[in-house]
Amino acid sequence: MSNMNDNKKKPRVIIIGGGFGGVQLAKKLKNAPLEVLLFDKHNYHTFQPLLYQVATGALEADSIGFPIRRIFSHQKNFTFHLAEVTKIDTDNNVVETNVGNYDYDYLVIATGADTNFFGNKELEHYTMPMKNIAEALNIRSLILQNLEKALVTKDEAERNALLTFVIVGGGPTGVELAGAISELREYILCKDYPGLCNADMKVFLVEGKAELLAAMSPQASKKAKDFLKKMDVTIYNSVHVSSYNGIILKIDDGTIINTRNVLWAAGVKGKIPTGMPEQTVAKGGRLVTDEINRVKGYKNVFAIGDVSAVTTEQTPLGFPGVAQVALQQGKHLAKNLINIIEGKPTTAFIYHDLGTMATIGRNKAVADIKKLRFQGFFAWLLWMFVHLLSLAGFTNKAIVFFNWAINYWTRNSDNRLIIRYFKTDTMTVDPISH
Amino acid sequence: MSNMNDNKKKPRVIIIGGGFGGVQLAKKLKNAPLEVLLFDKHNYHTFQPLLYQVATGALEADSIGFPIRRIFSHQKNFTFHLAEVTKIDTDNNVVETNVGNYDYDYLVIATGADTNFFGNKELEHYTMPMKNIAEALNIRSLILQNLEKALVTKDEAERNALLTFVIVGGGPTGVELAGAISELREYILCKDYPGLCNADMKVFLVEGKAELLAAMSPQASKKAKDFLKKMDVTIYNSVHVSSYNGIILKIDDGTIINTRNVLWAAGVKGKIPTGMPEQTVAKGGRLVTDEINRVKGYKNVFAIGDVSAVTTEQTPLGFPGVAQVALQQGKHLAKNLINIIEGKPTTAFIYHDLGTMATIGRNKAVADIKKLRFQGFFAWLLWMFVHLLSLAGFTNKAIVFFNWAINYWTRNSDNRLIIRYFKTDTMTVDPISH
Repeated sequence: MSNMNDNKKKPRVIIIGGGFGGVQLAKKLKNAPLEVLLFDKHNYHTFQPLLYQVATGALEADSIGFPIRRIFSHQKNFTFHLAEVTKIDTDNNVVETNVGNYDYDYLVIATGADTNFFGNKELEHYTMPMKNIAEALNIRSLILQNLEKALVTKDEAERNALLTFVIVGGGPTGVELAGAISELREYILCKDYPGLCNADMKVFLVEGKAELLAAMSPQASKKAKDFLKKMDVTIYNSVHVSSYNGIILKIDDGTIINTRNVLWAAGVKGKIPTGMPEQTVAKGGRLVTDEINRVKGYKNVFAIGDVSAVTTEQTPLGFPGVAQVALQQGKHLAKNLINIIEGKPTTAFIYHDLGTMATIGRNKAVADIKKLRFQGFFAWLLWMFVHLLSLAGFTNKAIVFFNWAINYWTRNSDNRLIIRYFKTDTMTVDPISH
Repeated sequence: MSNMNDNKKKPRVIIIGGGFGGVQLAKKLKNAPLEVLLFDKHNYHTFQPLLYQVATGALEADSIGFPIRRIFSHQKNFTFHLAEVTKIDTDNNVVETNVGNYDYDYLVIATGADTNFFGNKELEHYTMPMKNIAEALNIRSLILQNLEKALVTKDEAERNALLTFVIVGGGPTGVELAGAISELREYILCKDYPGLCNADMKVFLVEGKAELLAAMSPQASKKAKDFLKKMDVTIYNSVHVSSYNGIILKIDDGTIINTRNVLWAAGVKGKIPTGMPEQTVAKGGRLVTDEINRVKGYKNVFAIGDVSAVTTEQTPLGFPGVAQVALQQGKHLAKNLINIIEGKPTTAFIYHDLGTMATIGRNKAVADIKKLRFQGFFAWLLWMFVHLLSLAGFTNKAIVFFNWAINYWTRNSDNRLIIRYFKTDTMTVDPISH
């Protein structure tokens, strides 16, 4: 029993989710008088901003994932469990998981966001989301498998549908995917698929708002559109996809596109764990928190990153769902948790907007940094520099840099491997290895 | 019709399989007056000798695979199809595939070998083979998932079974796997899983023959055994696994091992396409060929590599199933096919044994090169040098070299990602992305 009392001496904080927010928080609690327990259903942290390069075969999956255990191999007060959280029981301060129940003194929900299909089951079934490495590899498989099919089909309408790519959502993810697929057409199609060299591969980008990259400056929005148009991407603005049944995509302005490839980057919603009451969830499926990231109505439950919205008079909709917010909130919450334990006053979270960037293609990017606006080659260099530095681990940095250098030089890449076969009939991965 | 006649002008050779033999043959036919058509069910060539490093998290999958289309992007007379061959119809010179039927003038079967469970369905279901990238990633997932489970289980017998690794088969693959898992225990276990640091993780190697690496010199066999014993691998020689039901492994000397991890590297058999008559198949499931690699009883059907056995008086059992044989046969058959077309005499295949190598761990390898025997550090350097040079593509070479350098220096790696979740209840990959 004395052993149990020893274990109980330090209060325990449970962090759910090993994304930018959760990992940053756990790191910053390194020397705190706390026991830190982190759950994630993956055993690795994912660098989501580069998922689109895995999806389009420019990078290998392993170079944008980093084992969570490795990040914390020297942190004594840290424990990781590969676990799915099944329920949060805030009455008893217990997190229920598929590997057992764990009690907490403080709980931090950092589960991030998932794709939002806005309740449309058909879109959820037939379109391809891209919020994790598995989904990025599925997109890679779909693209490559459909190019292979296009080569052998004798049905011309089917070939056209296989060669038509529709990206829904004109935020950074959609713009980057559209650009990367357009470059695949320009640099790879003739080399790898001589039989499709003269085929009419089409790339569409569909966005509900009047501009692309609506969260960025008007200059960035306009330039992104110009870049994509030059790269022969057909852009639809101010329209919405109304339905897609696996072959026919309908847009609400009456446009109909026959396609076998619809990539869905049109919205996200917070991944709210079971057990959090409805009144804690705001618009956009995010947990409502106060300015110290504490979930509405709770003393010891916090939420950071994409799953949360700091809902104050100044920020009625919360902060944007970007890595910087999660990182800064993780860092700030670490300080506040220590303050709380030590009986000191907490401080309100203030978001420092370091800027926004999106890359469209080779030498083509847009960046808003404070009041500065960059477009083109310099923005593209800046984008690469910032993303390289942000990647976890020296090996990942070096391998991504090396891949980028080679890809830039050869206008090609070696990573177009179908390593998870995608069954287009059921829209799932083939469970049988071959 | 004139178009069809044009197409018919050049005879067509169909190659089934993009392994060492098939790719080498297709390359050497670059300037031949032939249309070359290659089928593979993967869109990449796999460098099988390094699969065990993907399985143990030392390398990423993409760096040992190379897109087949990329290898041949400048070869005009070459066409690739991602296809599964469903049947060979030698009466009509037609190959039937899931993407259509194709007729041939010459057929080369280069389908390689698959794992041999010797008809034991239980072993086939419960043990983990490693003949392709998907299977290597499954082993990686199983190892990492079981270490995670070992951390949280409260059942001590179950924890011991989760921490017990049995490799069946003492050839190069088995020896390399046993060494790599033993090194994972030595260098990684305490760093990544502090909760298992003092746990008793066990590694067993079971081999039917009296020695490990039986195809190599007695010196190599002995040294490999010494290395593994020093690395605390328990070796069973001259015994066979009689059964395994997912938890209890029985060996025919009466030994019983409780384990959740059985890796099967105990045998291979040729992958014979449907339609090849029984009398063409020799012991070990290999197609019987003459000394010009022509399948017994046929004029225009050839077989090279692991799926074939050049069965002559000098080589009643064929040549060993190694990459060098496949590469040399591919090269030689290209010459013979050109000879046949040009009406010149063919020449018999002669195997030049360049040597055999196996690596056991850090600074530990064995190599038999002609009459020379190397063990230890020099053999290990030689092993790395030869394998690096043999890898397809500059990027792959560079990334593997870089990974090896970092892994050597840090005694760690960044690639322990579970990217295909393995369902141990059904022994298949989880088809749902998450």
